[in-house]
Amino acid sequence: MKLATLKDGSPDGKLMIVSRDLKRAVMVTDIVPSLREAVERWAAVLPALQEKARALEAGRAGNAFAFDACKVAAPLPRAPQWLDSSSYKSHGRRMVKAFNLSTASLEVDHPLMYQGASDSFLGARDDMVLPSEDHGIDIEAELGVITDFVPMNTKSADALAKVLLIVLLDDVSLRRLLFGEMSLGFGMIQSKPTCVFSQVAVTPDELGEAWRDGRVHLPMIVEVNGRGIGYLDCGEMGFSFGEIISHACRTRTLAAGTVIGSGTISNHDESAGSACLAERRALEILEHGAAQTDFLHFGDRVRIEVKNGDGASVFGAIDHGFTKLGT
Amino acid sequence: MKLATLKDGSPDGKLMIVSRDLKRAVMVTDIVPSLREAVERWAAVLPALQEKARALEAGRAGNAFAFDACKVAAPLPRAPQWLDSSSYKSHGRRMVKAFNLSTASLEVDHPLMYQGASDSFLGARDDMVLPSEDHGIDIEAELGVITDFVPMNTKSADALAKVLLIVLLDDVSLRRLLFGEMSLGFGMIQSKPTCVFSQVAVTPDELGEAWRDGRVHLPMIVEVNGRGIGYLDCGEMGFSFGEIISHACRTRTLAAGTVIGSGTISNHDESAGSACLAERRALEILEHGAAQTDFLHFGDRVRIEVKNGDGASVFGAIDHGFTKLGT
Repeated sequence: MKLATLKDGSPDGKLMIVSRDLKRAVMVTDIVPSLREAVERWAAVLPALQEKARALEAGRAGNAFAFDACKVAAPLPRAPQWLDSSSYKSHGRRMVKAFNLSTASLEVDHPLMYQGASDSFLGARDDMVLPSEDHGIDIEAELGVITDFVPMNTKSADALAKVLLIVLLDDVSLRRLLFGEMSLGFGMIQSKPTCVFSQVAVTPDELGEAWRDGRVHLPMIVEVNGRGIGYLDCGEMGFSFGEIISHACRTRTLAAGTVIGSGTISNHDESAGSACLAERRALEILEHGAAQTDFLHFGDRVRIEVKNGDGASVFGAIDHGFTKLGT
Repeated sequence: MKLATLKDGSPDGKLMIVSRDLKRAVMVTDIVPSLREAVERWAAVLPALQEKARALEAGRAGNAFAFDACKVAAPLPRAPQWLDSSSYKSHGRRMVKAFNLSTASLEVDHPLMYQGASDSFLGARDDMVLPSEDHGIDIEAELGVITDFVPMNTKSADALAKVLLIVLLDDVSLRRLLFGEMSLGFGMIQSKPTCVFSQVAVTPDELGEAWRDGRVHLPMIVEVNGRGIGYLDCGEMGFSFGEIISHACRTRTLAAGTVIGSGTISNHDESAGSACLAERRALEILEHGAAQTDFLHFGDRVRIEVKNGDGASVFGAIDHGFTKLGT
């Protein structure tokens, strides 16, 4: 099942089901008004949502309409928590080596994790407003899961069963603010504005065999201004989503609707390219001694998509630009 | 005006107004169901809330009842963001010196800030459930403000006008997990479980002259198992709440209801004691070469209170214990 949220000016928007081919949709506010409320009482609303999804696929859903990616917010426009890990080891290794960072982060046996803002996520076609290009605007193309309520100290095996939905997201990062913040030990605030989400969130069964070992085994394509910079295998995660959720909940509960990120997708094979410009710059530094790729400018566009075995878009492409605050 | 939230099993609870002396209360769900919804449309609901508060003080509010601190949740049981600064310079200086931390954090000209969980804050009399005493359970007694919507890049002078409410809180910390997390640069996740809040949130006018320069100039008393460990002047903040909010919103918006913390209260005068055990231990290490005070154990109790010039409790005391998970 694929779920999206129609923008209606409210903080949570209105829930819709979208067909597998992302062409048709139907409002399901008669079942539950928003995805926030749906994940808060998932077991109760799931059967009716699934029945409606089957009707939509069969062409027998009343009031179905053409799906318009420009009209959707993030599937979950605001979430109780946003915890992002850094789970692709080739990413961490390259960053540490190119930028002479502490190797401590490579030596731990648990996912690295930061907490970010989750009060106003952007939709797949929303431009991101930022105050300055000088901050080193970058993307981080990654996957995320939306969880059910997770009790404190849930172990990995049980944690994986808490995954309700899977999303694609762009964790926009301001690189020239990032290392400074990291050096203070308090995590990232100014270097991590909000995230841009895929058009739809999908239930794990929608991925079929590609969802296994707590990982999404599908290819991701990342483009900047129409030029491909990454053709990556998302399955190469150093930790599973079960392990990542378990790390997150060790001393806290996670409210239903918590979003947990994989961190920037990265592959050991350098020819796969990269899912963020910082890693591309790291590879350039390691090969040529200096970065050649610039960070993003206002007016630039980014496109991120994950395809299934049939070449069809799973989550609907993220395709967004950047705009200067106040213009 | 003093606002509290009655526990009713729902994530947001039910809004009530509490009298200045914390003895009487009246439900105001006929005006707005919860504080979350109130802060989302503050200007629209404020006049009716103020009128009801005046009626309560004058003894002419219908259906008023005796206020019971054991029945309230945190004033805002879930918030869109929780951003905590570390704004008392004597705290940072002592921690760096006693524990041989990097001095980088003492040299920056902006507030240090981390983002914590805001999906399930605890009420003033709620025991905090935690998995292990071995994590080094500690308190951090501090002040917080609840903001209106704050646009991106709002400057300090304008940011201060976004303060809707002021609260007292205990940002519980797990010290034996903290330095390890800080050393990785991603901020604190496992070392920062949730926070415990005061009984009521108060509008700034409630503090009178004690609310000036973006600071709360009132005394705080901190007790562990009935023994005073801190008698602190809250006004000694190195940064004002205007500066702290401005730092938080530099590259992001803050949704209405965002909670911004002062960080552990601390005074240059060592005889004032401390608002967390880690700083007490730091002072012991600096004086005697070793810490003498232990961290907290399950069954211990903490009491935190701020009093006004008349000796009356402003926010209602936080008075909570700690319980082992699963018992």
